[in-house]
Amino acid sequence: MTGQPLQTAPGRATRDAASAKAASTRDRILAAAAHLLSRLGYAETTLSGIARHAGLRPPAIYYYFPSREELIAEVMETGQRLLREHVESALVAAPAGTEPMDRICVAVAAHLSVELHLSDFATAVTRNAGVLPAEIRERLRDEGRVYLTLWNDLLQAAYAAGAVRDDLDLPAARMLVIGALNWTAEWWNPDHGSLADVIRTAQSLVRHGLGT
Amino acid sequence: MTGQPLQTAPGRATRDAASAKAASTRDRILAAAAHLLSRLGYAETTLSGIARHAGLRPPAIYYYFPSREELIAEVMETGQRLLREHVESALVAAPAGTEPMDRICVAVAAHLSVELHLSDFATAVTRNAGVLPAEIRERLRDEGRVYLTLWNDLLQAAYAAGAVRDDLDLPAARMLVIGALNWTAEWWNPDHGSLADVIRTAQSLVRHGLGT
Repeated sequence: MTGQPLQTAPGRATRDAASAKAASTRDRILAAAAHLLSRLGYAETTLSGIARHAGLRPPAIYYYFPSREELIAEVMETGQRLLREHVESALVAAPAGTEPMDRICVAVAAHLSVELHLSDFATAVTRNAGVLPAEIRERLRDEGRVYLTLWNDLLQAAYAAGAVRDDLDLPAARMLVIGALNWTAEWWNPDHGSLADVIRTAQSLVRHGLGT
Repeated sequence: MTGQPLQTAPGRATRDAASAKAASTRDRILAAAAHLLSRLGYAETTLSGIARHAGLRPPAIYYYFPSREELIAEVMETGQRLLREHVESALVAAPAGTEPMDRICVAVAAHLSVELHLSDFATAVTRNAGVLPAEIRERLRDEGRVYLTLWNDLLQAAYAAGAVRDDLDLPAARMLVIGALNWTAEWWNPDHGSLADVIRTAQSLVRHGLGT
C-alpha cells in the first residue's frame, strides 16, 4: 500500500493491519451498544440489535466480547469515565481564581454537554445506572465514587467560601443536583430548545438553589 | 364461617370467597412485581422472582396475567396514577390561600413521600420509566402528561404571581425539578438521613432555585 513503511519482520504489516481492523470493529461494536443503550435502555438492547447497528452478524460479536454482559459493562465503564474526565477537564480549563459557585456552574455545563450531546456512552450510563445487574453496578462503583467526590469537593469549597446556604443538607443537595442533571437524558431533545438554554436554566437553578 | 351473612343465591358465599381470594392473590402478585421492579429494575425482574416473592409457583401468575409485559404494564400504570393522585390530594389538602411557591413545596414533599416511602408502585415507575419497552411507555403516556400538566400549572401560577425568576426557561426548569425528585430513588435510603431531611433540602433548593 502507498506510504506503508518498510517492515523488518516479515508479515508485520499484515498483522498490524489485521489488528487495526480488529480494534476498529471492536470500537464499532462498543459504539453501537452505547447508541442502543442510550436510547432503548438495558433490557431492550439485544446482541442482534447491536450487531445490526454495527453492520455485523451477531456471532461476530463473540469474537470480541465473551458475553452481552461483558460488552455492556465495558460501555458503562467507558461512559462513567468519560463523564468524569470531561467535567474534570472543564474545571481544569476554568481560569485560575474562578469563584467556587462559578466552578459548580462549569461542572453543570460540562455534565449536561457530555450527557446530552457529546457521548452516547455517558448517556448510556446515566440512563441505565439504576437498573443494571448487581455485577455491572459493582464494577462501576469505584469510578462512580470518584465522580461523587468531585462534586462533594465543589460543594464543600463553595460552602467554605460562604457561597452555599446553611439550611441545606450538603450530601442530599449534591445528589438532588446530580439527579436533575442525569434525568435530562430522559426528557431533553433538541425539540425542547437548545442545549445552551437547558444549560443556562440548570445553572441558574443550581446557583440560586444552593446560593446565599 | 362466623359472621358470614346469609346468602339468598346458593353458592354465592363460596363464589365471593373464591373471587376475594383471587383478587387478593392478584394484588399480591402486583405488589411483589412492584417490590422487585422498584429494587432490581425492569430487566432483572423475572416472573420466577415475582412468583417466589408472592409465595406462588411461576405458572400460577399466568392465571391472572397473560404475560410478564402485561403484569409490568399494570404495575407501572398503577404507580404513575398513585404518584399523581397523592400529589393532587396533598394540594387539595393545603389550606385555601396557600402561596403558589408554598404549593410547589407541598408537591415536592408529596412526590418524595410517595416515591421514597409510601409506594413501591411509584418507585417502580420513576426508576424504570425511561427503559421500558415502547408499548408500555405508550400506555403510560397520557397519565404522564396529566402529571406534567399539574406541575406546569403549579409553576405557571407561581410565575404569574411574580414568585419565579424571569431568567428561567419554565418547561426546562419543571423537568429539572421533577428529575431531581425522581432520581432520589436511585440514591436515597434511610442511611442517608431521614426522609424529612431530604424533603426539607429539596424544598429549599426548589424554592430558592426558582424564586425571585
